[in-house]
Formats: sequence, C-alpha cells, structure tokens
Amino acid sequence: MREEQVKPHISLLTDFGLNDAYVGEVKAVIATICPDAHVIDITHDVRRFDIRMGAFLLASAARYFPKGTVHLAIVDPGVGGKRRPIAIETARANYVGPDNGLLVPAARAEGILRVCELTNSSLMMDTISPTFHGRDIFAPIAAKLASGLKVSDVGSEISDYVPLSFGNPKFEKRKAACEVIHTDHFGNIVTNIPARKGEVLGGRVVVKVRGRRFRATLVKAYSELEGNEVGFLVGGHGFIEFSCREASAAWRLKVEPGDVLQIAKG
Amino acid sequence: MREEQVKPHISLLTDFGLNDAYVGEVKAVIATICPDAHVIDITHDVRRFDIRMGAFLLASAARYFPKGTVHLAIVDPGVGGKRRPIAIETARANYVGPDNGLLVPAARAEGILRVCELTNSSLMMDTISPTFHGRDIFAPIAAKLASGLKVSDVGSEISDYVPLSFGNPKFEKRKAACEVIHTDHFGNIVTNIPARKGEVLGGRVVVKVRGRRFRATLVKAYSELEGNEVGFLVGGHGFIEFSCREASAAWRLKVEPGDVLQIAKG
Amino acid sequence: MREEQVKPHISLLTDFGLNDAYVGEVKAVIATICPDAHVIDITHDVRRFDIRMGAFLLASAARYFPKGTVHLAIVDPGVGGKRRPIAIETARANYVGPDNGLLVPAARAEGILRVCELTNSSLMMDTISPTFHGRDIFAPIAAKLASGLKVSDVGSEISDYVPLSFGNPKFEKRKAACEVIHTDHFGNIVTNIPARKGEVLGGRVVVKVRGRRFRATLVKAYSELEGNEVGFLVGGHGFIEFSCREASAAWRLKVEPGDVLQIAKG
Repeated sequence: MREEQVKPHISLLTDFGLNDAYVGEVKAVIATICPDAHVIDITHDVRRFDIRMGAFLLASAARYFPKGTVHLAIVDPGVGGKRRPIAIETARANYVGPDNGLLVPAARAEGILRVCELTNSSLMMDTISPTFHGRDIFAPIAAKLASGLKVSDVGSEISDYVPLSFGNPKFEKRKAACEVIHTDHFGNIVTNIPARKGEVLGGRVVVKVRGRRFRATLVKAYSELEGNEVGFLVGGHGFIEFSCREASAAWRLKVEPGDVLQIAKG
Repeated sequence: MREEQVKPHISLLTDFGLNDAYVGEVKAVIATICPDAHVIDITHDVRRFDIRMGAFLLASAARYFPKGTVHLAIVDPGVGGKRRPIAIETARANYVGPDNGLLVPAARAEGILRVCELTNSSLMMDTISPTFHGRDIFAPIAAKLASGLKVSDVGSEISDYVPLSFGNPKFEKRKAACEVIHTDHFGNIVTNIPARKGEVLGGRVVVKVRGRRFRATLVKAYSELEGNEVGFLVGGHGFIEFSCREASAAWRLKVEPGDVLQIAKG
Repeated sequence: MREEQVKPHISLLTDFGLNDAYVGEVKAVIATICPDAHVIDITHDVRRFDIRMGAFLLASAARYFPKGTVHLAIVDPGVGGKRRPIAIETARANYVGPDNGLLVPAARAEGILRVCELTNSSLMMDTISPTFHGRDIFAPIAAKLASGLKVSDVGSEISDYVPLSFGNPKFEKRKAACEVIHTDHFGNIVTNIPARKGEVLGGRVVVKVRGRRFRATLVKAYSELEGNEVGFLVGGHGFIEFSCREASAAWRLKVEPGDVLQIAKG
C-alpha cells in the first residue's frame, strides 16, 4: 500500500460462521486498537477449511475496496501448527492471514510488493490461544496496519509463501475443459474461464459433467432464459458462468466446485 | 428527502444471502464513493426473487431510520432485462432499486415526491455487469445520493412505476378474510390486518386455512399464552399476528406467506 | 463504566436471526439517537429463547471490547410479561437487556457496580410494542447510555436480579464431571472446566456421555490430531474443549449443550 487514506478500511473474510461470538471478538479487538477503522464483512460463511473458496471470494471482492484497505482473511485449518502467519503488501492494499494460499490470488492480481512472516510478537495479544490466531494474532496486526504500521515492520520478508491458483481452462479447436470454482447463493455455476476467453465458445454448447450432458445457450442476462433452459454468460465475477432463470443451475445440474466441465461447441 | 444531515445513513436490503462476496462488494463500492456513509443491513436473506417479502421488510424497517437515509434495496429477478432501475424521493428519505414494486410500500408510506429512472450513466461504474446491477448501478448511485446528489439528477422523472400493495383484509359482520404477508424467525404469522382494525375481531376467533381450523385468543404479549395455545396480538410490525409461546405458530399450523385466513368470531 | 471514550461502542447479541428486519430496526433506532455509535454484532443466531447460550457467548466476547462499551443483549422469552428490563453498570462497561440472567455472567466477570430497572419511560420509544422491547425499550436506552446517560438515570436500583451461572465441574481423585456449555460452528465441544483446572486431567482421558465412551488426548492445537482422533485442549473461550481435526466432534460424538461428561484419567 503506497498511499495514505483518511479513514482506514478493513475487509473481513472467514469461515467462522455467524452463530458464535468469534467474528464479534475479532471486531472487538480491531475496535480497541483502531477505533476509527471501518470494518466491512466480505463473508463469514466460507465452507469450513475451504481455502480455495475463500481465496476465490477474496479475489472477487478485493478490487472493489478503496485503495489502502487492509484485507483480513482467515480460513485456517493449520492454526496453532507449523503454517506461518503472514502479511502481504501489494500495489493497492495490505493483506493479513495464514500462509496457506488464501491471500495469494487477490494479492497477485494487484501486484505483490512484499510478503512478511508475522514474527513481531509485540504486535500481538499478550495471550495467544493456539486455536484462535484470528483474534489474537491476525486481528491486532490488521488493526495496526490500518493505523499506519507498515508490512515491513511485522517481521522478516519471505519468498517461499504457499501459492494458489484457480487453474487454466484448456481450449482445443471445438472443445474446452474448465473447472467449477464456485457455485453461488442463486445456484450460478462459476467456471475458471475468464470473460475475455468466453467468446471462443460460440453461441451454443454441449457440456459433459460427471457422465451427464446438458445444452446451454449464450445470453447476456438471466432474464433472456426461458423455462428449464440453461444459459451461459459473463457473470459478476468476470468469469463464464452457467445459469438458470430464477432457479439453481447447480442444484438442477448437480454440479459442485471442483467438477470439471467438458464443453463442446454445439 | 428535504433536510441535510451530518452523517449519511444507507440501509441495505437484498436477497443476496451472506455466503457470497456480493454484499461485501456492494459495501466496498459505497465505501469507495462515500467513505463516511454508515451502512446498516436490514437483511440479506429475503427469499430469492421474493419481491413481496422484500417490500414488506423494507416497509417495516424504513420508518425507524433517521430522516435522510438512503434505502438501497435489491431483489431483482429482472436484472439485465427490460425492468428499469429507479430512485424515489419521499418526504423523509431516498430509495434506490429496481422498478418492480420493491420500494413502493415503504416509499408510499412516507409520501412519494418524485420517481426517476436511473439513466445518467456517468453516475454508474465504468463497466456494468448485466448480472449485478446492485454493485455496478444501484450502489454507486446510492452512495452519491448519500453524498448529496439529488434524485432529480439521476435521470428523467417517470410516473408509470410498477405498484405493489399488501392487499386489504375484508370484514363482514362476524367474519374477516386476510392474507398472510410474512412468517418470521420465531414463527409468528403476520397478516395484513392493521393494528387499528384488529379490535373488531373480538377476544376469541376461529381461523380456517387450507381446509384446517384453529382457535385463537386475543392477548397482549406472548407470555400470556400457555401450552399449545394460539394467540393473536398486535405485533412489532403494526399488524395483527398469530403466535405461540416459545414455539413456531407457522410450523405448527403449516401456514405460509400468501395463505388466506378466514376468521370468524368465536 | 467509569471512563470517558471518544467513540461510543455498542455490542449487539440477540436470538432474532438475520432473516427478518428486526436487527436492522434495532440498529436504525440506535443510529437515530446516537449517530456516532459504532455497533458491533456479536451474534444474532443464539438459539431462540436460549438464555444460557446467549449468556455464554456474551461473557466470552465482552472482555475483548473497548472499555466503556454498551452491551445490548436480547434473548427475551418473557417479553411483554412480568420480567423486568434492566441495565447493569460494571467496572468496565454497561449492559442493557432483560432481567433473566442473560447479562449476569459477563457483567459479574467485570465486577457489578449497580443494577437498575428500566423504569424511566421518557427514555423509551413513544409507542412500545409488547412483542418488541428490543427495538422500543432496550435500543433507545442503550443508545442513550452510549451518548453519556448514566445507568443510575434509567430507573431505580435493584438487588434481586435473576442470577445465572455455568456451574462448576466436580473433581475427584482420578475423575471429573463437567457440563457441555456450548458446541461451536466447527463442532468443538466446550465444557465448563476453566483453563487453569484443565491440567489435573492429565494427558489421556476416557469420557462417558449418554452411555457411550470415547478416548481423548491432550494437545495444544487441532493440527496435532490425526484421522478420527479426539483431542482436548484449552480453547479460545478459556475453557477445556473436546475437538477433532477438520471435523465436528459434536456431530461425531453426538454431544449437545447441557450434556454431562464423566471424565476418567486413562
């Protein structure tokens, strides 16, 4: 992060759910250290321990936040073990969380300037629960970054951080193979085909998944679809997605994140 | 909205759910444009595409917000199609959302001064996803209204906006017919009988719904009810509701929004 | 609360769920009365009417909030009946909610200075719904306490407030009996054995619950566990909890809040 901003923004993404006091405790720690911070929830309903889902949602949302935002993200199956806590400085934001790939796609899209391991224990809570680094390590450091601390002050720089990517779809002459990276609240099936490559699919395709087939038609908006028709379009995340009108394509087609779609022009 | 206020408030009501990054992206856009805005969630768990439920919850909550609040509401099955995006100025607030009736009951209760179609594209995001007008059209315009923009600046005034009402209960001598407009988290069955008309029902009634019958007794508070007893009272929304004590009347009586209740004095 | 603070914080814990407009209405009332208040949600998913669960989550979270926070907590099966509305002043915070024990464990941990019944109706909404004291009594008074009102101004002091405790585990030579006070989003089974007493259990135990048995091993972090192993450790709440690695111990062992665990050194 290279510019000053008047009001510090902190985004928050976790797999804590909303049934416990955990999210409230993280926000309470932030409010104690940086009372002016404006905390914005991305989501707390990442599937438990699903680093890939968390990384996708963080990367989708980060670009819409003000420059200088501190993104605090915690999906952390290795908490209390050997995985390192890290902070990342990019050309437009700072990131804090576990070194398990969660932060990488969002940070890489902005240009990573520096990755540091969180080793400066004077920045953490006095007592650190081995089960809740979110509250006792990540939250206080995010709050201090929001208050003006620099990533270079949290600990020593590292270069061997854990990578994560959503893979690349494969294109042949009249075929493509892609992966489902997300199915959303409305049942839209989000693939890893970026918008700019979607046009090569043409106006009609046949999709094979898990031994089943469905046909889909290129549309611009959900409202062009009729009845049980399946469409595909550039969705709000900037990727090609398969959708139904006012119905869940994911439920209807029994498709889940991680599934591979074999697409043939039809 | 006719008065200035120091700190701008924006209320947010959607059917986006909390599992995705969508709500976070809307708030990030608002924070970028109007960092001082205080965003208050009404709910994001309106049933998908249920305009009527959204309109009811918005109308229930709007009256409790500070004067000058911008209400941003998005339940938008027609996104990307022919439905128009609109803003409404009332005697105490501004509303932004789709022209499908969602905003109308809340706005009408305050006195509608002006309805404008959102046509001024310089107020929107540079790139507009046809699947996510919430983030790319409605959020930036809500943030600009919170920053001082006037509804008359968003586009041209219209008068043929889509209406929506919750209907009127019918009263005969010893009978009434009403509609269920909401069943809440506690299972209370909220009807469209306004508080001031509830007294005509008397102290004891027999209700027919879907071929079944139940008896209900007028009470002032849930705690007056015993065992499996069903009561009716003026609920927090200002309508007559049927309730059980520490149990869900909606589950027990198998009643859903849209059901018609035939009420006879008993 | 004995010190001034620049920005007033209000924590919010309820069993209202997030599907209705109720939480939004409470926040709207607060924003109208005290626009500068920073409201932090602890949770709104306390099980309906489960005072004990609410009291546990409130007591867990309260200690992380800034000094001077007003904690507004509403799990209120007796709303509109004989239970009293109260405010509590402690050595570091103020509490507002129903007199049913909900506020007591959190307040007692900080040192209760004063408990007053909310009788000063000039501090409440003009119209009070008998079903929604959260919005019409508790929220306005919490907002006024955040604005500088003193607990001694809300009504007359009382000493016979309803108590609540999580009980004490019993220790014999090679045995202990404790109660499950919470099972969290990750399926961790939280007991009422405080951290400092956990060491007497030793490194391996056999637990009897509901006629079944399981073995558990003392660990420091979840990541030390392998396969189906059950571990026990000091969790983030400061109590001994039983856990599995990336799986729900509560589901696997079919344990619920209120269950008694018979623990023998193994």
